[in-house]
Amino acid sequence: MEHNLHHTISLLTRTPAALDALLRDLPETWTFRNEGENTWNTFDVVDHLIHGERTDWMPRAKMVLQLGETQPFEPFDRWGHVRESQGKSLGQLLDEFASLRSTNLGELRALNLRQQDLDLRGRHPALGLVTLSELLATWAAHDLTHLHQISRVMAHQYREAVGPWSGYLGVLQCAGHSS
Amino acid sequence: MEHNLHHTISLLTRTPAALDALLRDLPETWTFRNEGENTWNTFDVVDHLIHGERTDWMPRAKMVLQLGETQPFEPFDRWGHVRESQGKSLGQLLDEFASLRSTNLGELRALNLRQQDLDLRGRHPALGLVTLSELLATWAAHDLTHLHQISRVMAHQYREAVGPWSGYLGVLQCAGHSS
Repeated sequence: MEHNLHHTISLLTRTPAALDALLRDLPETWTFRNEGENTWNTFDVVDHLIHGERTDWMPRAKMVLQLGETQPFEPFDRWGHVRESQGKSLGQLLDEFASLRSTNLGELRALNLRQQDLDLRGRHPALGLVTLSELLATWAAHDLTHLHQISRVMAHQYREAVGPWSGYLGVLQCAGHSS
Repeated sequence: MEHNLHHTISLLTRTPAALDALLRDLPETWTFRNEGENTWNTFDVVDHLIHGERTDWMPRAKMVLQLGETQPFEPFDRWGHVRESQGKSLGQLLDEFASLRSTNLGELRALNLRQQDLDLRGRHPALGLVTLSELLATWAAHDLTHLHQISRVMAHQYREAVGPWSGYLGVLQCAGHSS
Protein backbone atom coordinates (compact mmCIF):
# COMPACT_ATOMS: atom_id res chain seq x y z
CA MET A 1 0.00 0.00 0.00
CA GLU A 2 1.41 3.34 -1.03
CA HIS A 3 1.97 5.81 1.76
CA ASN A 4 -0.35 8.78 1.39
CA LEU A 5 1.54 11.82 2.63
CA HIS A 6 -1.63 13.89 2.76
CA HIS A 7 -3.10 11.45 5.28
CA THR A 8 0.04 11.62 7.38
CA ILE A 9 0.09 15.40 7.41
CA SER A 10 -3.64 15.49 8.25
CA LEU A 11 -3.00 13.58 11.42
CA LEU A 12 0.22 15.38 12.33
CA THR A 13 -1.64 18.66 12.02
CA ARG A 14 -4.33 17.67 14.49
CA THR A 15 -2.33 16.16 17.35
CA PRO A 16 -1.32 19.41 19.08
CA ALA A 17 -4.90 20.69 19.18
CA ALA A 18 -6.20 17.34 20.38
CA LEU A 19 -3.69 17.23 23.24
CA ASP A 20 -4.43 20.84 24.05
CA ALA A 21 -8.18 20.18 24.25
CA LEU A 22 -7.62 17.14 26.41
CA LEU A 23 -4.92 18.38 28.77
CA ARG A 24 -4.81 22.15 29.21
CA ASP A 25 -5.71 23.19 32.77
CA LEU A 26 -6.66 19.65 33.68
CA PRO A 27 -6.13 18.94 37.41
CA GLU A 28 -2.66 17.62 38.14
CA THR A 29 -4.09 14.28 39.29
CA TRP A 30 -4.38 13.54 35.61
CA THR A 31 -1.26 15.12 34.22
CA PHE A 32 1.48 14.90 36.85
CA ARG A 33 1.07 11.34 38.04
CA ASN A 34 2.74 8.42 36.35
CA GLU A 35 2.40 4.63 36.46
CA GLY A 36 5.16 4.06 39.02
CA GLU A 37 8.92 4.32 39.27
CA ASN A 38 10.75 5.15 36.04
CA THR A 39 7.55 5.73 34.10
CA TRP A 40 6.40 8.91 32.43
CA ASN A 41 3.54 11.17 33.35
CA THR A 42 1.60 13.13 30.76
CA PHE A 43 3.88 16.14 31.17
CA ASP A 44 6.88 13.95 30.29
CA VAL A 45 5.12 12.63 27.20
CA VAL A 46 4.36 16.09 25.82
CA ASP A 47 7.94 17.04 26.54
CA HIS A 48 9.17 13.98 24.65
CA LEU A 49 6.98 14.96 21.68
CA ILE A 50 8.62 18.40 21.71
CA HIS A 51 12.05 16.82 21.76
CA GLY A 52 11.07 14.75 18.72
CA GLU A 53 10.03 17.88 16.85
CA ARG A 54 13.41 19.45 17.57
CA THR A 55 15.75 16.55 17.01
CA ASP A 56 14.08 13.63 15.29
CA TRP A 57 11.56 13.88 12.47
CA MET A 58 12.41 16.79 10.23
CA PRO A 59 16.16 16.71 10.93
CA ARG A 60 16.17 13.06 9.86
CA ALA A 61 13.99 13.74 6.81
CA LYS A 62 16.45 16.40 5.69
CA MET A 63 19.33 14.00 6.27
CA VAL A 64 17.70 11.45 3.96
CA LEU A 65 17.28 14.09 1.27
CA GLN A 66 20.76 15.52 1.66
CA LEU A 67 22.94 12.56 2.58
CA GLY A 68 20.91 9.47 1.70
CA GLU A 69 22.32 6.25 3.09
CA THR A 70 25.84 7.54 3.54
CA GLN A 71 25.59 8.60 7.18
CA PRO A 72 23.44 7.20 10.00
CA PHE A 73 20.97 9.43 11.84
CA GLU A 74 21.93 10.74 15.24
CA PRO A 75 20.48 8.30 17.79
CA PHE A 76 17.33 9.76 19.35
CA ASP A 77 17.71 10.39 23.07
CA ARG A 78 14.53 9.08 24.68
CA TRP A 79 15.34 10.95 27.88
CA GLY A 80 16.67 14.03 26.11
CA HIS A 81 13.58 16.05 26.92
CA VAL A 82 14.25 15.97 30.66
CA ARG A 83 16.85 18.70 30.44
CA GLU A 84 14.63 21.04 28.45
CA SER A 85 11.43 21.21 30.43
CA GLN A 86 12.57 22.27 33.86
CA GLY A 87 10.50 25.11 35.26
CA LYS A 88 7.90 25.00 32.52
CA SER A 89 4.17 24.47 32.89
CA LEU A 90 2.18 21.95 30.90
CA GLY A 91 0.45 24.87 29.17
CA GLN A 92 3.83 26.19 28.03
CA LEU A 93 4.79 22.77 26.71
CA LEU A 94 1.51 22.48 24.79
CA ASP A 95 2.16 25.89 23.20
CA GLU A 96 5.70 24.91 22.35
CA PHE A 97 4.65 21.60 20.81
CA ALA A 98 2.00 23.31 18.67
CA SER A 99 4.43 25.93 17.48
CA LEU A 100 7.23 23.50 16.61
CA ARG A 101 4.84 21.11 14.87
CA SER A 102 3.40 23.92 12.80
CA THR A 103 6.87 25.08 11.73
CA ASN A 104 7.95 21.54 10.91
CA LEU A 105 4.84 20.83 8.83
CA GLY A 106 5.42 24.10 6.99
CA GLU A 107 8.91 22.88 6.13
CA LEU A 108 7.63 19.47 5.14
CA ARG A 109 5.03 20.93 2.80
CA ALA A 110 7.61 23.25 1.28
CA LEU A 111 9.70 20.23 0.28
CA ASN A 112 6.95 19.26 -2.20
CA LEU A 113 7.90 15.62 -1.91
CA ARG A 114 7.07 13.36 -4.85
CA GLN A 115 6.67 9.59 -4.70
CA GLN A 116 10.24 9.04 -5.83
CA ASP A 117 11.44 11.22 -2.95
CA LEU A 118 9.46 9.11 -0.49
CA ASP A 119 11.32 6.05 -1.74
CA LEU A 120 14.71 7.58 -0.89
CA ARG A 121 16.60 5.78 1.82
CA GLY A 122 18.48 6.81 4.92
CA ARG A 123 20.35 4.86 7.53
CA HIS A 124 18.92 4.38 11.01
CA PRO A 125 21.61 3.74 13.65
CA ALA A 126 19.86 0.57 14.88
CA LEU A 127 17.29 -0.39 12.22
CA GLY A 128 19.53 0.00 9.19
CA LEU A 129 18.07 1.16 5.89
CA VAL A 130 14.73 2.95 6.10
CA THR A 131 12.81 4.99 3.56
CA LEU A 132 11.69 8.58 3.87
CA SER A 133 8.16 7.24 3.51
CA GLU A 134 8.62 5.00 6.55
CA LEU A 135 10.12 7.84 8.56
CA LEU A 136 7.17 10.16 7.87
CA ALA A 137 4.57 7.44 8.53
CA THR A 138 6.33 6.72 11.82
CA TRP A 139 6.09 10.38 12.80
CA ALA A 140 2.29 10.06 12.64
CA ALA A 141 2.14 6.65 14.30
CA HIS A 142 4.44 7.97 17.03
CA ASP A 143 1.83 10.63 17.86
CA LEU A 144 -0.71 7.82 18.22
CA THR A 145 1.56 5.67 20.36
CA HIS A 146 1.86 8.55 22.80
CA LEU A 147 -1.85 9.34 22.73
CA HIS A 148 -2.30 5.67 23.57
CA GLN A 149 0.19 6.02 26.39
CA ILE A 150 -1.35 9.23 27.76
CA SER A 151 -4.81 7.67 27.91
CA ARG A 152 -3.34 4.67 29.73
CA VAL A 153 -1.32 6.73 32.22
CA MET A 154 -4.35 8.89 32.96
CA ALA A 155 -6.68 5.91 33.37
CA HIS A 156 -4.19 4.36 35.78
CA GLN A 157 -4.95 7.18 38.21
CA TYR A 158 -8.54 5.89 38.49
CA ARG A 159 -7.64 2.23 38.81
CA GLU A 160 -9.01 2.07 42.36
CA ALA A 161 -11.78 4.62 41.94
CA VAL A 162 -13.67 2.58 39.34
CA GLY A 163 -14.10 -0.34 41.75
CA PRO A 164 -15.45 -3.53 40.16
CA TRP A 165 -15.67 -1.92 36.71
CA SER A 166 -11.90 -2.23 36.35
CA GLY A 167 -12.30 -5.61 34.65
CA TYR A 168 -14.42 -4.06 31.93
CA LEU A 169 -12.04 -1.23 31.07
CA GLY A 170 -9.60 -2.36 28.43
CA VAL A 171 -7.16 0.44 29.10
CA LEU A 172 -6.61 -0.91 32.61
CA GLN A 173 -5.56 -4.28 31.19
CA CYS A 174 -2.91 -2.68 28.97
CA ALA A 175 0.50 -3.66 30.23
CA GLY A 176 2.14 -0.59 28.81
CA HIS A 177 4.04 -1.38 25.67
CA SER A 178 4.60 2.28 24.90
CA SER A 179 6.89 3.78 27.45
CA MET B 1 -8.33 7.52 48.12
CA GLU B 2 -11.46 9.64 48.01
CA HIS B 3 -12.95 10.15 44.59
CA ASN B 4 -12.69 13.80 43.57
CA LEU B 5 -15.77 14.60 41.53
CA HIS B 6 -14.27 17.84 40.28
CA HIS B 7 -11.42 15.88 38.68
CA THR B 8 -13.88 13.52 37.04
CA ILE B 9 -15.97 16.34 35.64
CA SER B 10 -12.82 18.12 34.39
CA LEU B 11 -11.95 15.16 32.24
CA LEU B 12 -15.51 14.43 31.11
CA THR B 13 -15.79 18.05 29.97
CA ARG B 14 -12.72 17.84 27.76
CA THR B 15 -13.23 14.57 25.90
CA PRO B 16 -15.65 15.82 23.22
CA ALA B 17 -13.36 18.71 22.25
CA ALA B 18 -10.32 16.44 22.23
CA LEU B 19 -12.01 13.94 19.92
CA ASP B 20 -13.27 16.76 17.74
CA ALA B 21 -9.78 18.24 17.39
CA LEU B 22 -8.33 14.84 16.57
CA LEU B 23 -10.98 13.44 14.24
CA ARG B 24 -13.09 16.06 12.47
CA ASP B 25 -12.50 16.01 8.70
CA LEU B 26 -9.68 13.54 9.05
CA PRO B 27 -9.31 11.34 5.93
CA GLU B 28 -11.38 8.17 6.15
CA THR B 29 -8.24 6.03 6.15
CA TRP B 30 -8.02 6.98 9.78
CA THR B 31 -11.63 6.99 10.83
CA PHE B 32 -13.48 4.35 8.81
CA ARG B 33 -11.05 1.46 8.98
CA ASN B 34 -11.04 -1.03 11.80
CA GLU B 35 -8.68 -3.75 13.04
CA GLY B 36 -10.37 -6.62 11.23
CA GLU B 37 -13.60 -8.56 11.32
CA ASN B 38 -15.95 -7.74 14.19
CA THR B 39 -13.84 -4.84 15.41
CA TRP B 40 -14.79 -1.21 15.65
CA ASN B 41 -13.55 1.70 13.63
CA THR B 42 -13.31 5.20 15.09
CA PHE B 43 -16.81 6.07 13.85
CA ASP B 44 -18.20 3.11 15.83
CA VAL B 45 -16.36 4.21 18.96
CA VAL B 46 -17.77 7.75 18.87
CA ASP B 47 -21.18 6.24 18.25
CA HIS B 48 -20.74 3.97 21.28
CA LEU B 49 -19.81 6.99 23.40
CA ILE B 50 -23.05 8.67 22.30
CA HIS B 51 -25.03 5.59 23.22
CA GLY B 52 -23.45 5.68 26.68
CA GLU B 53 -24.51 9.31 27.13
CA ARG B 54 -28.06 8.37 26.28
CA THR B 55 -28.50 5.12 28.13
CA ASP B 56 -25.71 4.46 30.59
CA TRP B 57 -24.08 7.05 32.82
CA MET B 58 -26.63 9.61 33.91
CA PRO B 59 -29.62 7.24 33.73
CA ARG B 60 -27.75 4.89 36.06
CA ALA B 61 -26.66 7.71 38.37
CA LYS B 62 -30.30 8.77 38.70
CA MET B 63 -31.29 5.18 39.39
CA VAL B 64 -28.83 5.00 42.26
CA LEU B 65 -30.23 8.21 43.72
CA GLN B 66 -33.85 7.23 43.25
CA LEU B 67 -33.93 3.47 43.71
CA GLY B 68 -30.67 2.58 45.43
CA GLU B 69 -29.91 -1.12 45.49
CA THR B 70 -33.49 -2.25 45.00
CA GLN B 71 -33.44 -2.65 41.24
CA PRO B 72 -30.58 -3.56 38.90
CA PHE B 73 -29.52 -1.20 36.10
CA GLU B 74 -30.65 -1.98 32.59
CA PRO B 75 -27.83 -3.98 30.96
CA PHE B 76 -25.83 -1.73 28.62
CA ASP B 77 -26.06 -2.83 25.01
CA ARG B 78 -22.52 -2.69 23.65
CA TRP B 79 -23.85 -2.89 20.11
CA GLY B 80 -26.83 -0.64 20.76
CA HIS B 81 -25.28 2.26 18.89
CA VAL B 82 -25.37 0.45 15.56
CA ARG B 83 -29.03 1.17 15.05
CA GLU B 84 -28.71 4.87 15.78
CA SER B 85 -25.92 6.03 13.52
CA GLN B 86 -27.04 4.94 10.09
CA GLY B 87 -26.71 7.69 7.51
CA LYS B 88 -24.81 10.04 9.80
CA SER B 89 -21.38 11.54 9.23
CA LEU B 90 -18.58 11.47 11.78
CA GLY B 91 -18.94 15.25 12.10
CA GLN B 92 -22.60 14.81 13.05
CA LEU B 93 -21.67 12.20 15.64
CA LEU B 94 -19.02 14.48 17.15
CA ASP B 95 -21.59 17.27 17.43
CA GLU B 96 -24.09 14.92 18.99
CA PHE B 97 -21.60 13.58 21.49
CA ALA B 98 -20.58 17.10 22.54
CA SER B 99 -24.17 18.18 22.96
CA LEU B 100 -25.26 15.14 24.98
CA ARG B 101 -22.17 15.28 27.18
CA SER B 102 -22.76 18.95 27.89
CA THR B 103 -26.39 18.31 28.85
CA ASN B 104 -25.44 15.36 31.03
CA LEU B 105 -22.72 17.29 32.85
CA GLY B 106 -25.20 20.12 33.43
CA GLU B 107 -27.53 17.61 35.06
CA LEU B 108 -24.70 16.10 37.08
CA ARG B 109 -23.61 19.49 38.41
CA ALA B 110 -27.21 20.38 39.24
CA LEU B 111 -27.41 17.34 41.51
CA ASN B 112 -24.88 19.01 43.84
CA LEU B 113 -23.66 15.65 45.03
CA ARG B 114 -22.07 15.48 48.49
CA GLN B 115 -19.64 12.82 49.69
CA GLN B 116 -22.45 10.86 51.34
CA ASP B 117 -24.31 10.78 48.01
CA LEU B 118 -21.23 9.38 46.30
CA ASP B 119 -21.25 6.52 48.79
CA LEU B 120 -24.79 5.50 47.82
CA ARG B 121 -25.07 2.11 46.20
CA GLY B 122 -26.83 0.73 43.18
CA ARG B 123 -27.02 -2.71 41.69
CA HIS B 124 -25.17 -3.58 38.49
CA PRO B 125 -26.75 -6.50 36.60
CA ALA B 126 -23.44 -8.39 36.43
CA LEU B 127 -21.08 -6.73 38.93
CA GLY B 128 -23.50 -6.53 41.85
CA LEU B 129 -23.30 -3.67 44.31
CA VAL B 130 -21.49 -0.57 43.07
CA THR B 131 -21.28 2.96 44.45
CA LEU B 132 -22.29 6.15 42.72
CA SER B 133 -18.67 7.21 43.14
CA GLU B 134 -17.47 4.15 41.21
CA LEU B 135 -20.03 4.74 38.48
CA LEU B 136 -18.94 8.34 37.93
CA ALA B 137 -15.23 7.48 38.04
CA THR B 138 -15.91 4.77 35.46
CA TRP B 139 -17.60 7.28 33.19
CA ALA B 140 -14.28 9.18 33.01
CA ALA B 141 -12.10 6.08 32.72
CA HIS B 142 -14.41 4.82 29.97
CA ASP B 143 -13.61 7.94 27.94
CA LEU B 144 -9.94 7.08 28.35
CA THR B 145 -10.39 3.43 27.42
CA HIS B 146 -11.93 4.53 24.15
CA LEU B 147 -9.30 7.18 23.50
CA HIS B 148 -6.82 4.36 24.03
CA GLN B 149 -8.76 2.22 21.57
CA ILE B 150 -9.08 4.98 18.96
CA SER B 151 -5.33 5.63 19.01
CA ARG B 152 -4.71 1.90 18.60
CA VAL B 153 -7.23 1.44 15.77
CA MET B 154 -5.80 4.43 13.93
CA ALA B 155 -2.20 3.32 14.39
CA HIS B 156 -3.14 -0.10 13.02
CA GLN B 157 -3.77 1.54 9.65
CA TYR B 158 -0.07 2.44 9.46
CA ARG B 159 1.24 -0.94 10.61
CA GLU B 160 2.86 -1.61 7.23
CA ALA B 161 3.72 1.97 6.36
CA VAL B 162 6.11 2.42 9.30
CA GLY B 163 8.32 -0.42 8.09
CA PRO B 164 11.00 -1.51 10.57
CA TRP B 165 9.92 1.09 13.15
CA SER B 166 6.91 -1.07 14.03
CA GLY B 167 8.89 -2.77 16.79
CA TYR B 168 9.51 0.57 18.49
CA LEU B 169 5.89 1.71 18.52
CA GLY B 170 4.17 0.49 21.66
CA VAL B 171 0.69 1.04 20.29
CA LEU B 172 1.39 -1.58 17.61
CA GLN B 173 2.19 -4.15 20.27
CA CYS B 174 -1.14 -3.59 22.04
CA ALA B 175 -3.30 -6.66 21.62
CA GLY B 176 -6.49 -4.69 21.98
CA HIS B 177 -7.99 -5.19 25.38
CA SER B 178 -10.52 -2.47 24.82
CA SER B 179 -12.98 -3.51 22.19
